[in-house]
Amino acid sequence: MQRPRTPLLDRVKFPSDLRKLSEADLPRLADELRAEMIDVVSVTGGHLGAGLGVVELTVVLHYVFNTPFDRLIWDVGHQAYPHKILTGRRARIRTLRREGGLSGFTKRSESEYDSFGAGHSSTSISAGLGMAMAGALKRLDRNVIVVIGDGAMSAGMAYEAMNNAGAVDARLIVVLNDNDMSIAPPTGAMSAYLARLVSSPLYRSLRERAKMFSKKLPKFFSDKARRSEEYARGFLTGGTLFEELGFYYIGPIDGHNISYLLPVFKNVRYWGKGPVLVHVVTHKGKGYLPAELAEDKYHGVNSFNIRTGQQVKKKSPEAPSYTKVFSSSLVKEARYDNRIIAITAAMPSGTGLDCFGEHFPKRMFDTGIAEQHAVTFAAGLACEGFKPFVAIYSTFLQRGYDQIIHDVSIQNLPVRFAIDRAGFVGADGATHAGSFDIGFLAALPGFVVMAAANNIELMHMVRTAAAYDEGPISFRYPRSEGIEKELPERGEILAIGKGRILREGDRIAILSFGSCLQAALAAADDLGRAGLSTTVADARFAKPLDEELIIQLTRGHDVMITIEEGAPHGFGGQVLHFLAGYGLLDRGFKIRTLTLPDVYLGHGSRDQVLSRCGLDHQGIVRAVFTALDRDMVIRKC
Amino acid sequence: MQRPRTPLLDRVKFPSDLRKLSEADLPRLADELRAEMIDVVSVTGGHLGAGLGVVELTVVLHYVFNTPFDRLIWDVGHQAYPHKILTGRRARIRTLRREGGLSGFTKRSESEYDSFGAGHSSTSISAGLGMAMAGALKRLDRNVIVVIGDGAMSAGMAYEAMNNAGAVDARLIVVLNDNDMSIAPPTGAMSAYLARLVSSPLYRSLRERAKMFSKKLPKFFSDKARRSEEYARGFLTGGTLFEELGFYYIGPIDGHNISYLLPVFKNVRYWGKGPVLVHVVTHKGKGYLPAELAEDKYHGVNSFNIRTGQQVKKKSPEAPSYTKVFSSSLVKEARYDNRIIAITAAMPSGTGLDCFGEHFPKRMFDTGIAEQHAVTFAAGLACEGFKPFVAIYSTFLQRGYDQIIHDVSIQNLPVRFAIDRAGFVGADGATHAGSFDIGFLAALPGFVVMAAANNIELMHMVRTAAAYDEGPISFRYPRSEGIEKELPERGEILAIGKGRILREGDRIAILSFGSCLQAALAAADDLGRAGLSTTVADARFAKPLDEELIIQLTRGHDVMITIEEGAPHGFGGQVLHFLAGYGLLDRGFKIRTLTLPDVYLGHGSRDQVLSRCGLDHQGIVRAVFTALDRDMVIRKC
Repeated sequence: MQRPRTPLLDRVKFPSDLRKLSEADLPRLADELRAEMIDVVSVTGGHLGAGLGVVELTVVLHYVFNTPFDRLIWDVGHQAYPHKILTGRRARIRTLRREGGLSGFTKRSESEYDSFGAGHSSTSISAGLGMAMAGALKRLDRNVIVVIGDGAMSAGMAYEAMNNAGAVDARLIVVLNDNDMSIAPPTGAMSAYLARLVSSPLYRSLRERAKMFSKKLPKFFSDKARRSEEYARGFLTGGTLFEELGFYYIGPIDGHNISYLLPVFKNVRYWGKGPVLVHVVTHKGKGYLPAELAEDKYHGVNSFNIRTGQQVKKKSPEAPSYTKVFSSSLVKEARYDNRIIAITAAMPSGTGLDCFGEHFPKRMFDTGIAEQHAVTFAAGLACEGFKPFVAIYSTFLQRGYDQIIHDVSIQNLPVRFAIDRAGFVGADGATHAGSFDIGFLAALPGFVVMAAANNIELMHMVRTAAAYDEGPISFRYPRSEGIEKELPERGEILAIGKGRILREGDRIAILSFGSCLQAALAAADDLGRAGLSTTVADARFAKPLDEELIIQLTRGHDVMITIEEGAPHGFGGQVLHFLAGYGLLDRGFKIRTLTLPDVYLGHGSRDQVLSRCGLDHQGIVRAVFTALDRDMVIRKC
Repeated sequence: MQRPRTPLLDRVKFPSDLRKLSEADLPRLADELRAEMIDVVSVTGGHLGAGLGVVELTVVLHYVFNTPFDRLIWDVGHQAYPHKILTGRRARIRTLRREGGLSGFTKRSESEYDSFGAGHSSTSISAGLGMAMAGALKRLDRNVIVVIGDGAMSAGMAYEAMNNAGAVDARLIVVLNDNDMSIAPPTGAMSAYLARLVSSPLYRSLRERAKMFSKKLPKFFSDKARRSEEYARGFLTGGTLFEELGFYYIGPIDGHNISYLLPVFKNVRYWGKGPVLVHVVTHKGKGYLPAELAEDKYHGVNSFNIRTGQQVKKKSPEAPSYTKVFSSSLVKEARYDNRIIAITAAMPSGTGLDCFGEHFPKRMFDTGIAEQHAVTFAAGLACEGFKPFVAIYSTFLQRGYDQIIHDVSIQNLPVRFAIDRAGFVGADGATHAGSFDIGFLAALPGFVVMAAANNIELMHMVRTAAAYDEGPISFRYPRSEGIEKELPERGEILAIGKGRILREGDRIAILSFGSCLQAALAAADDLGRAGLSTTVADARFAKPLDEELIIQLTRGHDVMITIEEGAPHGFGGQVLHFLAGYGLLDRGFKIRTLTLPDVYLGHGSRDQVLSRCGLDHQGIVRAVFTALDRDMVIRKC
């Protein structure tokens, strides 16, 4: 495969090189940058559409502003590949998302041009405001520019930051990257509002007549025409919502036209005090036809053939993935019980709930990126006798922690939490790891906390959660293929707080919670070959604990290993606390709790990383032998 | 003391009685309700100002709407005393906030009229939207009314809910109770915006001309005139921010004039589909002169003399409270280091940071009720070399958990967390208890987690946090008087991860983390009298653990007790995990972890509740004897 010719881009290692080019060169540079980016992602896979949408914006921002002295923050960070190419990382760009390679997001430790690390959405305005106030305190002539998507504007955090920025009169430039994709119905009033801003001719003419800002304001005509009578209500004027929040509003501007972008940002650069919002309209996937034509605009892709756009198919999984099994099980349960409701926070396809929405459009809610609201919204539904399933990835559930405690758990409302991406998640790295959920949920009085050992267990847990109406209940499952290939028609209702024994032995006990059960069984084989007869149990519940089972395992075994794909102080912590509290450690018992290590793990392949962390069968065997203080010689049978 | 004469109110046990009155009677009923409420709080203490502000609103809402079938939700809930009096709880109203008595907030288990429990701010719109969607799914002709204050509108959660409500076209009535108190500068653009709405004559005339809603729209003239040139920018019109978010906006309306309120709510009652926002202007403390004249409008008071308004003084504390010591220590450190910044989320006086703001107005930030933003804002400041101290109560810090993980901890930024109200908080009950912070912070890689055993220790920790620049660090302290009466001039810098031994013995070891150290010392006295020589240590750090100290305590002692004022799986969990991981439990060791119990504790006196939970010296002694399996006879010396 031949790489694209990029004579201009080859001269740009850093933004300082870029600034030596003439303005007239910039469109060509943007074209080369786009070609390079397409070539890169065709090899590495990753986020393509978002980066393609901001190629011109990236060029203009680095051209106009004095990065890295001026601070540039990319919200979420998955649109930052062009930024990485322009900021000294082109040579390593083909290592993106590979272990030891570049991160798929911005990362402070990777480059001084990454002013703030990201991964989760909607954090940029807060961080940028902090930097802007720091600049003011130091009396620096510094600009802080944050680029945030329209989707990220549905999160309360972005609003909190704007509300604060508008009050403190910060020198802050917020670039609203409006690339409304229309792959799902608008998830919030804000998205409808932005569409109105772009589509209203009345608005444009008022704004243009005012000429408040620049004589060069582009006459941009949008293709969005979601306007309706209802939307038009209360829309007579030039004062935008952002101005009401204290921002100076400029836009909308065509984000792919460099000759429109340049004058605006050159003006904004010397703006001085008071926050500015520049509303830029871009197209996700811009400039690569297969992406433009695709429904998801190649949001996240595998490696692909550039000419055809054909993505390399992943080896077809042997067993249905956890996500799929969750999705189909919930649809099934919802047929039996019309009180079941599904809630997602802007992840209909990632959680598999898109499928639920097709079957039960009225019983499916997408709150937008709004985990806090999603949880309490579910609490409201539960008050009225419905059975809400809130499907949120482990890492994003952290955003709703107070609501889980205050609105769900304290009131003991039967909200169901389906926790996908629990454990190590692979290429997305530390910001997306689902490490802490076991600990932070099991800490809550009365909460039922489950983890699925395989896809059939997940079916049981979906059904159990549907049946359980006494209080909050959760079940976690990893980002992975399932284990079992043959699935039953429907799951079974599990007894709350009861685990199961899969294999009985009399020397070693392995008590697994969730996704490590296969490793436990393989370890038992190894241990058996080494003459150590091993019991394997699946705890199913971290709370309430199966105390009877645990007592049984302490008796007649020399060593107990607990294992879970989560941070320390999760399931193993619950077991230790129980044993200590009942004096079961008083006379000595070798127990080891295997967990993810107490560090933030970088991106890498899930299997390899888990193995390195000792969460595979070899790790279990090692832990047993270390506990027994024996040489690690496994008898080969 | 004589209770006020309340002939009308005496006829109203429930809202159904209220609805039998004529409209003409309502103002008199409101007067009686106000008199009763003043009388109640003069005896019980509690939240007075907020309730006085909504007396008329409470009467009108219960009169117009069919509660409890129609759902009425009070945001935060501390303004719900008049609501409690009208909904069957008048007989018990003088037990407010006392152990076993009525809660100071709304509580579902207390009454079917409390549609949703509260305590934390800004949850009501989310919960109400859930109930509204439930009503729609059940095809019920039900109204859902939520009452939310202007302060609560600064929280992102409220915005997320409005954004969602505007998109799904819910039948939801949001009453914006705008009682802007002006005791602090406006903390957000939203509060300035609301003041503009109220003050702009242009706006009013436009709205009145439009007569979009009701011919009876009151001509309400506000005394607020915070209008300025800058505010006027972008303010040409009738489209309010709320309308842009998809709400039908009505207001502003004088919230103390029943003849204005009645027609509006009677119309709104049959509104049908689509969310409505009714903007009501009220005055906190209304109708009780001492409250109206007070700066804080008697937000929270002790019992008081009704005639004079004089509050009963609490016994003057013998030692400076933790909050005061934190405040003065931080001011002191900030004199030595101009990089120190203080951040509060709408709690300047509760955290003691108002004092910091007086000394260093430019280095103090109040973000409004916006914990998510506050944490990431601090992260931005830390990126630029500043030393932000984020002072947030333990219970509210739950709202910033994702930001603590994603923006602070993963990037290892040196943000300092000052955690007040850690542990059991007394009369505010379960929603305000600071139970979980030790566990949820100690779970994070690299986080330094401290707890102050007394007010001098708190001084050390403030200084240690100021000096420590390697990553995130926190220190917790209870809602309480301090212990030490004589304080040094300045704290000392503690060695990170090092505890201290206060008393050496050879049978029992007590390892205390934070506020229980006094109990540990008292227990050691008791145990000594019983012939059990006792070591007492103050761990200071839950993370990193003082491993050397812990190993020392396991050696040469029969029993180890850990104690902390927090939920299970906090400090004790860290110790257990360490001991198990290093095989230190393999040969047997009696260890017991004393914590708050795994239930949500109701409101009550802190000392009594802690004692009942076994977190006092007797509880420690009991735990030791149970572990030793000996009769609990303490030899009296």
